[in-house]
Amino acid sequence: MFDCIDAQMMQNALALARLGRFSTSPNPRVGCVIAHGSQIVGQGFHVKAGEPHAEVHALRQAGEMARGATAYVTLEPCSHYGRTPPCAEALIGSGVSRVVAAMTDPNPLVAGKGLAMLEAAGIRTESGLLETEVRELNRGFLSRIERGRPFVRIKCAASLDGKTALADGRSYWITGEAARADVQTLRAESCAVLTGIGTVLADNPRLNVRAFPTLRQPARIVLDSKLQTPLNSHMVSDDLSPTVIVTDVDDEERLKPYRAFSHIRILRSSENAAGRIDLAALLPQLAELGYGEIMVEAGATLTSAFIESGLADEIVLYQAPKILGEGRSLLTLPANPTVLASEGEWESRSVELIGQDVKWVLRKK
Amino acid sequence: MFDCIDAQMMQNALALARLGRFSTSPNPRVGCVIAHGSQIVGQGFHVKAGEPHAEVHALRQAGEMARGATAYVTLEPCSHYGRTPPCAEALIGSGVSRVVAAMTDPNPLVAGKGLAMLEAAGIRTESGLLETEVRELNRGFLSRIERGRPFVRIKCAASLDGKTALADGRSYWITGEAARADVQTLRAESCAVLTGIGTVLADNPRLNVRAFPTLRQPARIVLDSKLQTPLNSHMVSDDLSPTVIVTDVDDEERLKPYRAFSHIRILRSSENAAGRIDLAALLPQLAELGYGEIMVEAGATLTSAFIESGLADEIVLYQAPKILGEGRSLLTLPANPTVLASEGEWESRSVELIGQDVKWVLRKK
Repeated sequence: MFDCIDAQMMQNALALARLGRFSTSPNPRVGCVIAHGSQIVGQGFHVKAGEPHAEVHALRQAGEMARGATAYVTLEPCSHYGRTPPCAEALIGSGVSRVVAAMTDPNPLVAGKGLAMLEAAGIRTESGLLETEVRELNRGFLSRIERGRPFVRIKCAASLDGKTALADGRSYWITGEAARADVQTLRAESCAVLTGIGTVLADNPRLNVRAFPTLRQPARIVLDSKLQTPLNSHMVSDDLSPTVIVTDVDDEERLKPYRAFSHIRILRSSENAAGRIDLAALLPQLAELGYGEIMVEAGATLTSAFIESGLADEIVLYQAPKILGEGRSLLTLPANPTVLASEGEWESRSVELIGQDVKWVLRKK
Repeated sequence: MFDCIDAQMMQNALALARLGRFSTSPNPRVGCVIAHGSQIVGQGFHVKAGEPHAEVHALRQAGEMARGATAYVTLEPCSHYGRTPPCAEALIGSGVSRVVAAMTDPNPLVAGKGLAMLEAAGIRTESGLLETEVRELNRGFLSRIERGRPFVRIKCAASLDGKTALADGRSYWITGEAARADVQTLRAESCAVLTGIGTVLADNPRLNVRAFPTLRQPARIVLDSKLQTPLNSHMVSDDLSPTVIVTDVDDEERLKPYRAFSHIRILRSSENAAGRIDLAALLPQLAELGYGEIMVEAGATLTSAFIESGLADEIVLYQAPKILGEGRSLLTLPANPTVLASEGEWESRSVELIGQDVKWVLRKK
């Protein structure tokens, strides 16, 4: 069904799609190659929501040369009028004779209709080439559409003895510069970075991307059930990142000062019995807002709550070659005796040295 | 001074030396290549103490072809009559015209005398090729000779949240099969495996190499200041590994039952104020016994004592992709606030996945 030229062209399309990994949110990352055999005549990727889709860029470059060619797209071409006209129509108009998609678009607005439109116009269509790789790249978008909740990545850092801070809370610079730069990349890939009010009060973080220029800052989400975010915190005073304050407070008088800031959105979400935001109820709300890939950069309590509730999909653990001794532990979870007998819930995806620090990526099985 | 053929031949000699890594203790690992240019005519490595040195094997293979050749040896040829006659004499007799050593032998019995003997016989000698790599391979032997104490490797295992066991002590199978097999390799490389009486009483370990056949079992060293090693423990009942019980007890009546076992040696060593064996005083004693490379496989208390006293040279940390939650911590050390401001005392040498587990190797700076 697919030959090695197909595989190579789709690899190219995938590489193009990756170029959008910092900027397409809430849209998926999509790349497109138009080729006659191994002769590429057009290529493109989706840069930013509201801007043209990958197919449009590729077709513009190919022009008349698209006639009779094969178009390789990492996601089924869209069939609906959104902020841009349907790509299926553009492909039909271009004269391509075959369209290969890595996967069909699970978005109910498309969901096979794109390929059906092409077929109806006499274009041969195929799907399922490099789907695993494309699913990985669009894990956030797909989680939002298919599971109705974001893909949740937990970022944490510890010493080699599993501590995050001294007993008095001091923890500055546990990991090195290279690891911190790597975190900036993960932030840039995220639709939003999520933290807790404890971290806001203790560290007043900015949670934005500063290491390199970006077309888009990830949103910031603060879980703040009691509405304690200081008005002079970076969350409020720095308006470069869209910021969501999640709270159970509905007193408009108290909310008013926050509403004065156009980058701030108040999201009402319910508390659980422990007086903390109910994560299982919150995640669908965040998906609703368009957040597909969320990185949690929080303290031990919130990080542990995500893990304990089974809502964490990935853990990225940075470990510094330092021994902190007595101090605060990475996680605060009840004993888990079943793990000794079982295979465990997590699988190691990769491990590498980033400067002097270990970066360990784990996925929920 | 050295050309690329020299470098290549010494690499070969180093690879040969590595073949002895499980068996030469207490001797160093040594390889030898005899060559005319890049034509190898003889090669050999030292297999086991009491057996011929590397040079002897290589010269036997080369025979008459050694005449006029260069001999590459990873360590200066010996000049003294030990269990075997001096290799310097054998090299002189063979007619080689040049001897290249990776490094001079710091052993005071040799210490330059080997090269001097060769020079006196009209053989050109050079030293210092791949010395760093050879020093690494013989870290244990060199530590024993140069520092008068063994190279100490700490082996430990933890969950991703830095725990070694549940609060009740249960910890079986934290790491996977592949990591445990890797530990067997580290044991086989060690002159001795050291543990504490706590581990003997709790786990009754065997601390030997079972995963593959070996010419030699590493010795076992138990720190047992109060002489509590059970007579029915593997340490006593299994006589395949030479076993050293380190104790402060000198009551011959109590020692007598242990003395009945020919594989057991009692080592008197003093306690510190805390009633534990004084590690700084012990290590020179162990070097005296010929132990150059020691692996500590112990509980958190003894492991932490080695680290706190600055006597650990390497840490090999295996981490399983499991979350134990509340439980026993990897290390029990007092808070170390200076580490936050400093570069830290440890450097990361390597990290890799062994099966599903992380293996992280750190060296004292």
